[in-house]
Order: sequence, then C-alpha cells, then structure tokens
Amino acid sequence: MSHIILIPEFKRLIDEKDIDTLREFFTDYHPKQSAEFLEELNPEEVWFILLLLDMDDAGSIFSYFEIEDQVELLQHGDDNSVKKLLEAFSSDDRADLFKTLDEKTYSRLIALLTKEDKEDVEDLISYEEGTAGAEMSTDFMYCYIDQTIEDLFFYLREYGSSKETIYYIYVVDENDTLQGMITLKDAVLSKPTDLIKDIMNTDLITAGVEEDQEVVAKLIEEYDVMALPILDEQGSLKGIITYDDVIDIIKEEQTEDVERMMAISGVVEDRDYLDVPVWVHFKKRIPWIIILFFLGIVSSKVIGHYEDILSQVVILAFFFPLLNGTGGNTGAQSASMVLRSLTLETLEDSDFIKAFFKEFLISLMVGTVLFFTMYLSFYVFGFNDVSFPLWKISLAVSLSMAFQVISATLIGASLPMIAAKFKLDPAVVAMPAITTIVDFTGLIIYFNVAKIILGL
Amino acid sequence: MSHIILIPEFKRLIDEKDIDTLREFFTDYHPKQSAEFLEELNPEEVWFILLLLDMDDAGSIFSYFEIEDQVELLQHGDDNSVKKLLEAFSSDDRADLFKTLDEKTYSRLIALLTKEDKEDVEDLISYEEGTAGAEMSTDFMYCYIDQTIEDLFFYLREYGSSKETIYYIYVVDENDTLQGMITLKDAVLSKPTDLIKDIMNTDLITAGVEEDQEVVAKLIEEYDVMALPILDEQGSLKGIITYDDVIDIIKEEQTEDVERMMAISGVVEDRDYLDVPVWVHFKKRIPWIIILFFLGIVSSKVIGHYEDILSQVVILAFFFPLLNGTGGNTGAQSASMVLRSLTLETLEDSDFIKAFFKEFLISLMVGTVLFFTMYLSFYVFGFNDVSFPLWKISLAVSLSMAFQVISATLIGASLPMIAAKFKLDPAVVAMPAITTIVDFTGLIIYFNVAKIILGL
Repeated sequence: MSHIILIPEFKRLIDEKDIDTLREFFTDYHPKQSAEFLEELNPEEVWFILLLLDMDDAGSIFSYFEIEDQVELLQHGDDNSVKKLLEAFSSDDRADLFKTLDEKTYSRLIALLTKEDKEDVEDLISYEEGTAGAEMSTDFMYCYIDQTIEDLFFYLREYGSSKETIYYIYVVDENDTLQGMITLKDAVLSKPTDLIKDIMNTDLITAGVEEDQEVVAKLIEEYDVMALPILDEQGSLKGIITYDDVIDIIKEEQTEDVERMMAISGVVEDRDYLDVPVWVHFKKRIPWIIILFFLGIVSSKVIGHYEDILSQVVILAFFFPLLNGTGGNTGAQSASMVLRSLTLETLEDSDFIKAFFKEFLISLMVGTVLFFTMYLSFYVFGFNDVSFPLWKISLAVSLSMAFQVISATLIGASLPMIAAKFKLDPAVVAMPAITTIVDFTGLIIYFNVAKIILGL
Repeated sequence: MSHIILIPEFKRLIDEKDIDTLREFFTDYHPKQSAEFLEELNPEEVWFILLLLDMDDAGSIFSYFEIEDQVELLQHGDDNSVKKLLEAFSSDDRADLFKTLDEKTYSRLIALLTKEDKEDVEDLISYEEGTAGAEMSTDFMYCYIDQTIEDLFFYLREYGSSKETIYYIYVVDENDTLQGMITLKDAVLSKPTDLIKDIMNTDLITAGVEEDQEVVAKLIEEYDVMALPILDEQGSLKGIITYDDVIDIIKEEQTEDVERMMAISGVVEDRDYLDVPVWVHFKKRIPWIIILFFLGIVSSKVIGHYEDILSQVVILAFFFPLLNGTGGNTGAQSASMVLRSLTLETLEDSDFIKAFFKEFLISLMVGTVLFFTMYLSFYVFGFNDVSFPLWKISLAVSLSMAFQVISATLIGASLPMIAAKFKLDPAVVAMPAITTIVDFTGLIIYFNVAKIILGL
C-alpha cells in the first residue's frame, strides 16, 4: 500500500533533483524493500537513484530485482553506469545474470568488466547447472597461513566490505591450497600478535566444484556451518557456498521431489508458473500420462478377462472406483511416509524388513476398519442385487476391500524401498504409478475373492 | 568405517587415562563428528571424555546427540558434571531437551540450573509449539545504545564465546527495547571510538514471540539475514532465530505439506519413522481414508444410477479404472503445479483467471493426445463388443477420456485456488481428495457421453 503513496513522491523528488532526501530514504531501507520501490519506476528513474547511492548499496538493491528486470535495466544504462553496477554486484548473482543474456547483450556487458571479473564470470558459467561450481560465489575472504591476526584485520578493513561474508576467513598457502579456516569470532577473541596458523581450524568440511549442489546443501545443514569452501581437483580454493544458497537449493530440490511425485517429468523451471509457456507445461506432463495410460490398459484387460463374472453380477462394477481409490490412497500414504524417511535419511537399507512389517501392521488395522465400514455401507446406502443374497455380495466386496488395503499399503511401501536398494532415486516411483499399479492388483484380488465367495 | 577401528582405540586410551591424546583428538574434529564417535561408547566413557574438554566444546558435541541419547547421558551423570554440561548447552537446544523430560528427571535437572538459566528454560518451554518463541535462542549478543565500538569489543571478548552468534549484535536501550543492530562486519570496519548509535542499522526486520515459525523462516529467507530478533508485545528483545533454525523449519513445513498432500492428517512427527508407534501412524492415516471412502461411495451410487446402461454395454466397465486413473493423474498434476506456485507465492489472487485459462489450454492438448491414443487402443489391444459397432464404443470412450482430462485438469487447478481465495491453506485440498472427486465427475461424463453416442 505504501508503494502507491510513495511512487508519485519519488517521481517528484527525482524531478526536483532532491538528491539528499532520496539518498537518505534508500539508505535507510533494507535493500529488498528499496528494490520493491524501484520496481515501480521506469529504468531512467531507477538509474538516477542507483547512481546516487554508494555502489555497494546499489549492488545489493540490484540483486533483489527479478532477473528480467536486471537485464532490462542494464540494457537502458550507459556503459559507465553499467560497469560500476556490475562491479558492485556479487559474483554468483552476476554469473546467474550472464547465463540468461542473449549473445548481443552478453558481448556488450562482458566487454565492460575488468579482466579479472571477466574471467570470474566465464569460469562460473562454465560449470554444469546443479553443481557446486555453478552455485558458488568467488567473493570470499582469505588470508595466508603465515600472517598474524593484525594482518588479517588490516585486510578485513581494506577488502571486507565487498565480500559475500567475512565471518569465515579461509587460510591458504602460496599455491592457493586451502589449509584452514578462521572464524571472525575466533579472530575477534584473539590477540593481534597471534599467528593465523595457531588459531585456524584445520578440520574443514569441503566439497569439490563438480559436487551435486544437494550434497553441499546437506553438508552445510548437517555441520551447521555458515559456508562451505569449494575446491578444484588440485585442492585450490575456488569459491564458497553460503547458508542462504542452501535455503534456495533445498526449496528447488523440494519442488523437484513434489513434481516427480506427481508424475511431472523434466527439470524444475526457474520461471514462475505463469511465465512458463503452455507448450513447456504440456511437454513436462504428457510423458507420464501416456506411460500411465498404457499401465492403465492392463486394468481394462483384467476386467475384460473376467467379463463373464461381471455380466452375471453387474453390481461388482459399482465398487471399482471405491476399491481402486481406497487402494490408491492407502498406497500413496505408505509410499510417501517411506519416501520421506528415505529422503531425510532416517530409514536405512537394513531397516527395510522392519518398515515392511510396520506397514503390514498398520494396513491390518486400516483394512479391518474398512472391512466393517464397507460391509455396513451396503445396508446403509441401499445397494442391492437380484441374483445373490446381499450379505454374500457385501462380504465379497468388503473382504476385497480389506485385502486391497493391505496389498496396496505393502506395494506403496515397497516400491520406494526397492528403488533405494537399486540405488535409484526413490522419488522416481511417482505416486500415480503406485495408484495405477494397485488398480490392477486390486481388480485381480476383487474378481478372485468374488469368484470364491459367490461360488462362480 | 573409521568408527570400527577407532572405538577400541578410544576404550584403550580411556583405560590408560591418556588424557592428552583424547583431548587433542576430540578438539581437532568437528563437534558433529566427535558426537558420532561418542555415540558408540557407553555413558561412563562419554562423560569421561566430555569432562576432559573445554565445556563450550563439550556443549557443542552434546548438541549433536539424538535427544534420547542426551537424556540417557544426563541420567548417568553426577550432579556436578550435569550442571556444567547444561550450562554450556545452547539455550534453544536446552529448552527442547527439557520439553521431552519426564517429571522426575525434569525436577532433578531444573534444580541444577542457576536461577537465570532456570527462568530461561521455563520461559522458552512456555511458548506454544510452532511459534517464534518456542524456536528462538536467548543466547544472543547485545550492547547498549550509548556505548562505543571499543566497549562492544570488550563485551565480545568477555561474553562472545558462549553466544549462538556474535555476527549480529543487537542494540537495546535501558528498558531492553530493541533500538537497532550492528553487524560484526560493521564493527570491525569501524574505529574504536565510534559510537554504536551512529553505526547501527535501525531499519530492522523483526517478529513477535507469538508469530508462526513459518513466517519467521520466510522473513529470514526473503531478507537474506542471518538472524531475526524476536520481540514481546512491549518491543523488548526476547531472543533470536538464526538461519540454521530456518533450514529445519523449511524441512518441517515441507514434510507437513507432503503429508497433507498425501492425505495424512495431524502434526508432523519429530521422531523417525520407525520410532513412531503403529497406533500413531494409524491415527494419522485413517481419518482421510474414511472421509475419502464416503466420497468414493458417491461414485458407486453414480454407477448404480446408470445400472441399466451398464448391463447393456458391460464393456463400458472395462474403462472405469483407466478413465478415473487418467483423470486423477492429470488433476494431480495441475493441482500440484498450482499448489506449488501458491506456496512459493509466485501466483497471486489476481492471476487466477490467467492460470485457469492456461490449464484449459494445456488440458486441450493433453485431452487431444489421449483421445487418439484411446481410440487406437481399441484396435491395437483388441477390445470388442457384440451389440455395438466397435467404432461407436471406441468413440464414446475416447470422447469421454478427452472430456475427463479437461474437467479433471480444471478441477485440480481450481480447488487449491478456491481454498486460497477463502484464506484456507491450499494444501488442505489433498491430492487423494482431487482424485476422488474427479472419479465421480468422470463417471457422470462417461455415462452421458455413452448414452448420446450409443443412442441409449
């Protein structure tokens, strides 16, 4: 709401060139809030304001813009201003920006960078998406192993303000090989004459540039560190991944898991739902729908096989959706519980028998409840058949229901565990696949139970 | 693997009382790794080692133990050792521990705390689960507004080592009301004579003790801060929530979302899957299964209503599972896409018409593909009927399939949006509910299309 009131005010201040008021305003607010205000202005106005500010502040605000707005703004700026802003921009965000540029804009912008920054961008965008290298920032603070705490503070005051974090300072030798890490906390609590090598922590958790970003996220989370140093094959420190990157990675992986669970294939889109073209949505959804269609044809063939029984007792068809639905629901429940435990690594390979037995007990309880609910439903909801006594039909359907619940629960629990056993991502066993499989196992149970009870 | 080799070695060192080697070993390793080693030893051995170490280190190692192991260890320690360890333990983890204690152990342990720590525990456990108050730590660093940077560093050296973080230092007035915040980075980059009030940041993002932890997590994530100050109604600073808590909160909320999607009710269990009793699993799963059962009965009644048609054309029943399954799959896909966008807040109320239209276009494409796939399947998989020409049956089923895909997609997309419109958590619209609803809408479509095409 405040935006609506403020925007005309900003425009007035810009017209009047009231630099002091504008500068004070945007320095006071959090960069994210400032970015939200600026989104409402046109590129010329945004440039006017950004150039008033300290370039580090301008860089922080710019990093909160949507990537398309960043590109648009850079296309509207003169070379000198763009150069300043790109220099102030953090290295990982800058690399992300360059990844999205078309060839022409890329050439124009990369030419504005210093040689060092240019190499930095080219290096960062060369890593494959999803690896630690592609996610890391190169704006880390480092010092040399033979220096003192006093030297370190001198460096911090000199270079600290432009770094992603100065709370972890990495210690390297003359070959840039990582030797240790010192926290700013330890540095503050030490004497100026203390030697870095005596204070530094040498037992570091690290990851390689080619490591999967999900593994890095897990390490940061498990070891409760603020940042993880990323090394190349030679052990040289190439960058760091910080806790805020981890939050993004976790969210992305979470979206991927949900999409897989719901039978949506392909990579997770960076773009918002509405920005993704219909065609792309279609391509991500159709493969599994077709695969599941052909799995579903098996159910049609199963029913076709028992056509004689069905023609004699048409009422059996009334409960296809109920039996299949309940099987699908119980199967999805057990699959998701097991899947979750596998993802969070609270369930080990060696626990599978235990988990299976646990699901069996749960399914016995759920199956028993549903047996009685189904049996009574025949009388309560007034289902009837002419050729067989109601109690017989009711018993056949209710027993099938109980067996369906038990088998579906066990199938749901087993499939992710089997996938994990074969070192496949258990999430590939999408929920719809489970419901489709329990459809035809349920039908086979149903017709056979009916045959026996009804004596067909 | 290293554990197996090291455990006998630890036992030997403990027997020989080789204090120096043990102390050096456990100081070198990350506390999490040390905790993993110690888990293999018996409580007496663990106590022997913990008491050798600096108590801050011992507290860090202890915080990586499973909560049940923490309780067991405390039950095996003498009062003096327990007292030392509880003092070194971080305030939020300590409160979590006290929450799980039985009455007897609680009384014994709380009596060992200093008056201040006792009040701290009692205060923290009084907040409702899921609020900022229950999640926050009270080990934050603060200073007064009229002090200098030199005063601050004096405090940091004196008290800093026991704090959760010293990277954000909160500035309060004489009433403990929060006035601002200074980062250690700013402090390091300032002169010793600078006044706190001139350097501090006054535009703080804060949350109240009663705030939902999910909201706090979102704030920390959006504003890229390391910690968020938590205030009571009077604006007094009560504690902080740090980025590592956010990662835990996000994971917990994610589990909750998945469980809701899979029709599992109740609160998310803190315990591992195998530690949760069968009875608790049963209670979380059965409510939705029963609700969905009764929703499913509607499908049975729908089929019952069209019994005449079904008796004439039994082959129609062959495709119940396929139609329902495909409807469920397409509905779940669109629901999960929309749900995800709502959760990530990339889809606004005002975009609902656009999203609906987009899903309509996607469903037209998927529906068209499935129309032809279904039509051809009749010939390829050899389905047949005596009373109607195959092309007519095939057309009826295929058209129904196309309509089912379109309506299921739109139902799947609409339900979460409708829930959001009414300010309900869109995740309450569990996927199984969507599949159950599209079961009976699909059947109504199916029988009516069949009636028209087959002229019944």
